[in-house]
Amino acid sequence: MSSCFNGGITVSLFGESHGKGIGVVLDNLPSGEIIDLERIGAFMARRAPKKDGTSTTRSEKDIPEILSGLYEGKTTGTPLAAAIMNIDQHSGDYGNISHIARPAHADYTGFLRYDGANDPRGGGHFSGRITAPLCFAGAVCGQILEHRGITTGAHILSIKGVLDEQFDPVNVTAEQLEIVKSRPFPTLSEFAESEMREVINTARMDLNSVGGIVECAAVGFPAGIGSPMLDGLENVISRLVFAIPAVKGIEFGNGFGCADIFGSENNDEFTIKDGKVVTKTNNQGGILGGISSGMPIIFRAAFKPTPSISRPQNSVDFKKMTEQELVIKGRHDPCVVPRAVPCVEAALNIALVSALLEDPHIRR
Amino acid sequence: MSSCFNGGITVSLFGESHGKGIGVVLDNLPSGEIIDLERIGAFMARRAPKKDGTSTTRSEKDIPEILSGLYEGKTTGTPLAAAIMNIDQHSGDYGNISHIARPAHADYTGFLRYDGANDPRGGGHFSGRITAPLCFAGAVCGQILEHRGITTGAHILSIKGVLDEQFDPVNVTAEQLEIVKSRPFPTLSEFAESEMREVINTARMDLNSVGGIVECAAVGFPAGIGSPMLDGLENVISRLVFAIPAVKGIEFGNGFGCADIFGSENNDEFTIKDGKVVTKTNNQGGILGGISSGMPIIFRAAFKPTPSISRPQNSVDFKKMTEQELVIKGRHDPCVVPRAVPCVEAALNIALVSALLEDPHIRR
Amino acid sequence: MSSCFNGGITVSLFGESHGKGIGVVLDNLPSGEIIDLERIGAFMARRAPKKDGTSTTRSEKDIPEILSGLYEGKTTGTPLAAAIMNIDQHSGDYGNISHIARPAHADYTGFLRYDGANDPRGGGHFSGRITAPLCFAGAVCGQILEHRGITTGAHILSIKGVLDEQFDPVNVTAEQLEIVKSRPFPTLSEFAESEMREVINTARMDLNSVGGIVECAAVGFPAGIGSPMLDGLENVISRLVFAIPAVKGIEFGNGFGCADIFGSENNDEFTIKDGKVVTKTNNQGGILGGISSGMPIIFRAAFKPTPSISRPQNSVDFKKMTEQELVIKGRHDPCVVPRAVPCVEAALNIALVSALLEDPHIRR
Amino acid sequence: MSSCFNGGITVSLFGESHGKGIGVVLDNLPSGEIIDLERIGAFMARRAPKKDGTSTTRSEKDIPEILSGLYEGKTTGTPLAAAIMNIDQHSGDYGNISHIARPAHADYTGFLRYDGANDPRGGGHFSGRITAPLCFAGAVCGQILEHRGITTGAHILSIKGVLDEQFDPVNVTAEQLEIVKSRPFPTLSEFAESEMREVINTARMDLNSVGGIVECAAVGFPAGIGSPMLDGLENVISRLVFAIPAVKGIEFGNGFGCADIFGSENNDEFTIKDGKVVTKTNNQGGILGGISSGMPIIFRAAFKPTPSISRPQNSVDFKKMTEQELVIKGRHDPCVVPRAVPCVEAALNIALVSALLEDPHIRR
Repeated sequence: MSSCFNGGITVSLFGESHGKGIGVVLDNLPSGEIIDLERIGAFMARRAPKKDGTSTTRSEKDIPEILSGLYEGKTTGTPLAAAIMNIDQHSGDYGNISHIARPAHADYTGFLRYDGANDPRGGGHFSGRITAPLCFAGAVCGQILEHRGITTGAHILSIKGVLDEQFDPVNVTAEQLEIVKSRPFPTLSEFAESEMREVINTARMDLNSVGGIVECAAVGFPAGIGSPMLDGLENVISRLVFAIPAVKGIEFGNGFGCADIFGSENNDEFTIKDGKVVTKTNNQGGILGGISSGMPIIFRAAFKPTPSISRPQNSVDFKKMTEQELVIKGRHDPCVVPRAVPCVEAALNIALVSALLEDPHIRR
Repeated sequence: MSSCFNGGITVSLFGESHGKGIGVVLDNLPSGEIIDLERIGAFMARRAPKKDGTSTTRSEKDIPEILSGLYEGKTTGTPLAAAIMNIDQHSGDYGNISHIARPAHADYTGFLRYDGANDPRGGGHFSGRITAPLCFAGAVCGQILEHRGITTGAHILSIKGVLDEQFDPVNVTAEQLEIVKSRPFPTLSEFAESEMREVINTARMDLNSVGGIVECAAVGFPAGIGSPMLDGLENVISRLVFAIPAVKGIEFGNGFGCADIFGSENNDEFTIKDGKVVTKTNNQGGILGGISSGMPIIFRAAFKPTPSISRPQNSVDFKKMTEQELVIKGRHDPCVVPRAVPCVEAALNIALVSALLEDPHIRR
Repeated sequence: MSSCFNGGITVSLFGESHGKGIGVVLDNLPSGEIIDLERIGAFMARRAPKKDGTSTTRSEKDIPEILSGLYEGKTTGTPLAAAIMNIDQHSGDYGNISHIARPAHADYTGFLRYDGANDPRGGGHFSGRITAPLCFAGAVCGQILEHRGITTGAHILSIKGVLDEQFDPVNVTAEQLEIVKSRPFPTLSEFAESEMREVINTARMDLNSVGGIVECAAVGFPAGIGSPMLDGLENVISRLVFAIPAVKGIEFGNGFGCADIFGSENNDEFTIKDGKVVTKTNNQGGILGGISSGMPIIFRAAFKPTPSISRPQNSVDFKKMTEQELVIKGRHDPCVVPRAVPCVEAALNIALVSALLEDPHIRR
Repeated sequence: MSSCFNGGITVSLFGESHGKGIGVVLDNLPSGEIIDLERIGAFMARRAPKKDGTSTTRSEKDIPEILSGLYEGKTTGTPLAAAIMNIDQHSGDYGNISHIARPAHADYTGFLRYDGANDPRGGGHFSGRITAPLCFAGAVCGQILEHRGITTGAHILSIKGVLDEQFDPVNVTAEQLEIVKSRPFPTLSEFAESEMREVINTARMDLNSVGGIVECAAVGFPAGIGSPMLDGLENVISRLVFAIPAVKGIEFGNGFGCADIFGSENNDEFTIKDGKVVTKTNNQGGILGGISSGMPIIFRAAFKPTPSISRPQNSVDFKKMTEQELVIKGRHDPCVVPRAVPCVEAALNIALVSALLEDPHIRR
């Protein structure tokens, strides 16, 4: 299943960048969940192109139309479908590059995979645009989590080496997550924001692009949810996060850092606080054996620089089998990371709702 | 499904560390594949405890018994089941710690998940021992890949900061992979090996443990295999790699490194070599849009230090809800990384066979 | 997954009878398949209410809008989504019966399942209306089958005991299937048609309803497709056919009839004809061990009489927990069988494409 | 997945008739369920060959060895694996027929499906022997159902036209089910038993075989469990029942009979009894819209006559492509129906546990 996730819930994504519409079908959601559509819109707006020079100037008024699954403001429990019609399409911009592979894009691999029948316009189904319905699904799941006292949130941890502060893995709060999510440029430190904006702007002026790291957390997620081996929280979250184009790495808790320290440093000692079992540190990122420990869930995802850059690049025409210089036209994000922040949250929200619904205890 | 993977093939793992047996059922394998059991044994021996001080002194003679699915030396195409009987069990060693949570282990989370009914002896189903049948499955898949001219291999990239050389992401060869796999301590550089052995030995003497990074590659994998979004190669490989206990991060190609460079540096320019489309660099790790590009597939997985250390640790008895000092007895690996190398290969092998069998072209 | 089928292809159905829209997402279709939308429309028109007294007088102009997955008239291989907007809604007709359970309907069971949050208007997601997107999916799959020389077709075998002729299980041809499909009232015998119409009309005049049996066949389906045990052709076809509301039974080949004869009568002897292995009889309905034998695939599905009848019925108000007489208003089919014929074909088409795509040989 | 069922629980069957062993892995079972192994053995003994002339004289001492998933007599919640070693094998009996297709068997279709690599001895994975692990799985699930006050049971409804009484679809009780299950030849009427035995015996003497119908029921299953469309109770039960070799039809409630009556006769009117919503009749077999109504669940499955008969049959050698007379040697059941009774129950038990575990309310 290329574009379908099956766990406690089912998520079927569809659409192509320049086709008629994109969307998602969510099956097996719990019934009777109040869904606030205005807040869904606000969530999705965080993914929309910014007017501040950090992203494309394309206008994406992505208003999802709910086709089914909501009745009197609540989930029916039967499939919830949403479609977003594509309006602002500039297919012309892509006309001349159809068989010259854009480096670090899926033009060439997609052509092979689909024998050239896939929609090449704007990346087709490989487009970052398909993260809009992913965000819709994640926003719905986010409200279902909230009803259970769970808050998720993400921020930009770094952009081309410029670092924000990290979440405190033990003490991060729902309030902090709410605050950082509400910022137009989601960093914990305002100083990091201005430096990062500068880096992005410089890259843009230079017809170049930059990548970065998104850090994401969940607080209030109950202990004991998840499974060992193949459907642990790490397995499911990583499977969903890699659905976001441009992600090239993920790490939980101390992540790659744990490779450099001793067990005595990395082990999170247990203690009791306010009558609850907690750990003094949280190098495991809230997950032990694929199962939540009750500590904040923390992970980071690495995003590569936007592959579409305006400067000339060497490439090949894979139909003519000739080497060919390529100049990508059109409007592109110099950095996808700011818009990727809600996408990462969305992936986490879907994973957590799925895990909750697979649990024998909490399911409601 | 906690311990079952469903893709082009189905892998159902079972077993507990100190139960009667562990094993795996592989369904939907291609039929008529010659399987060399001696080489399966050799693959699994790479995961077995070493006699060189880097791992536990437990003896695990893990000889898998094939119950079905092999006939006259070839896969039948119907389910291939293998069981490994547990022999060398020291349950007594674990008797006294059953409700004191070992830090960075799944004792506490497993207890919550299963209401205390799960087998606690030696970690039960959470034990690293369940990677033995994972290796069996991976060894079978490795031979299926070989029949198609595909070679995979991994090495220890680092142990507590001590670095081996990296694979050349453009030019790594099947021969190099075969050589490094055959080494008792799989590093590319012999100097790295001796330094790493030293670090592990010091940790062991110090009643401590260390982690590290495994780098893994596949060469000969055809271009055009995989899918966008949720069943891309990165999604499936990461889902399988996180099934190995102690993995806390994964990155493909340039991975987290791509967050620090410009698009113009990270984009792999296409060119034509020997009549084939290739890239000059391979920062994408051989995967574009979830689909193989024909370049070597490269990824790295971070392993935390073995949670079981012999020095006293603070913890809690989660049944009595009291704080309690804990001293873990028994024999444990001071570093799981050397034994994890074939496990990572196994995860990759399963993912690649699964992707091949889901492909509309190559399937046989 | 309540409304999602996952096999060689993925089918995600959505929608409620009186909601905004209904539809389907098809994932993992082969790419490059030419799809004739006019013929899709013709297929769906066969399911639409007839103007001949055999069905409801509601007007369902079910024109599916393709949102994605078709490009230049061919499947892209990425998800194909289609939506049908609901227009002709008479919610008012249902207003007064919301908590009085209509006998043989899912009002009561749906209420329990979804805690009363499901959309009750017109049966909501339980409505026969959701077979419209099922037919869309089946029509697409039917064209994919045709590209491979496979023809499917169904007819009304009986309505309240009035029998049509049966398909000849050995010699039924593609031509016969095409002819019967094209008939407004699909029977093999014209005499049966007039008698059946009479029975339906009488039931309608009598404020009553009738059921019947649909017989369905596939010819040209290659031998050797399918699997033993749980994903055999019978398993998958039956799972899909029971997705059609009102189906209460299914039988393959000789079906229930085989319970009454000797093995020597039921066994289909093999012989060679035109250089091919065939059977002299076809009591197995073209399926042996879950796998196609190359003979026509034949099965029958039993449909219960339309539950919605206009005469008063005894029931209960399951909210007030009182007994209550019920008179169902609105326009309803006195017999769903004529409109069910393409639905049964659709289910078969989906099952066969799924099985083909799971096969290691034929996949394209 | 040919031999793997994935729903609320996962069931992976494996094994070949004359291979080393057969078995099953059950994943996602609830934890802490007490499992009585003696009663598991008793359940499986009902499937074992009878010594009374109705079945093969082969001795199948099918003692399953539990490899994992049970600890201190309770399910751990992690995968429960059981293996049965094959002992009494008469491969020699099959030696000479390997490429002559036994009529109504899967020899020919299996050969095509697996390119001749599948194990042909005794039917290999297509053998009825694989219903032994199915029964093991069903017996485990049956105990889990009992813990929730649910009882299932089946009887022989007919053998070659000789009819037993039917279950009373409204009033059948757990006691009745327990009694009929405990009978060596499970019929409700003793007169039917003696007539059926006679029919079977005559067929056996005549080197022939007969089929029949099994009727199965569940009582105590709560209302509101199941799902519309593709994972309704009918879909899942039918998918599992068709995993039993020789099943050619299934019907729920009134089944094919509903095709012959009026809606006013088939609709089950609701009423209130002892404060509960019930129906006066139960033509729907306890299932409405794929969801349980709280009434007894009733269905019937048709079994074809044993394909293996001892009289000469015409067939073909599908390797030489020549017509060839065939005489099947070895010991075979003249009628599989008596031994199929627990298999049908097993399929139902698995389906019901799966549905319960997918339900948002009852899950424990």
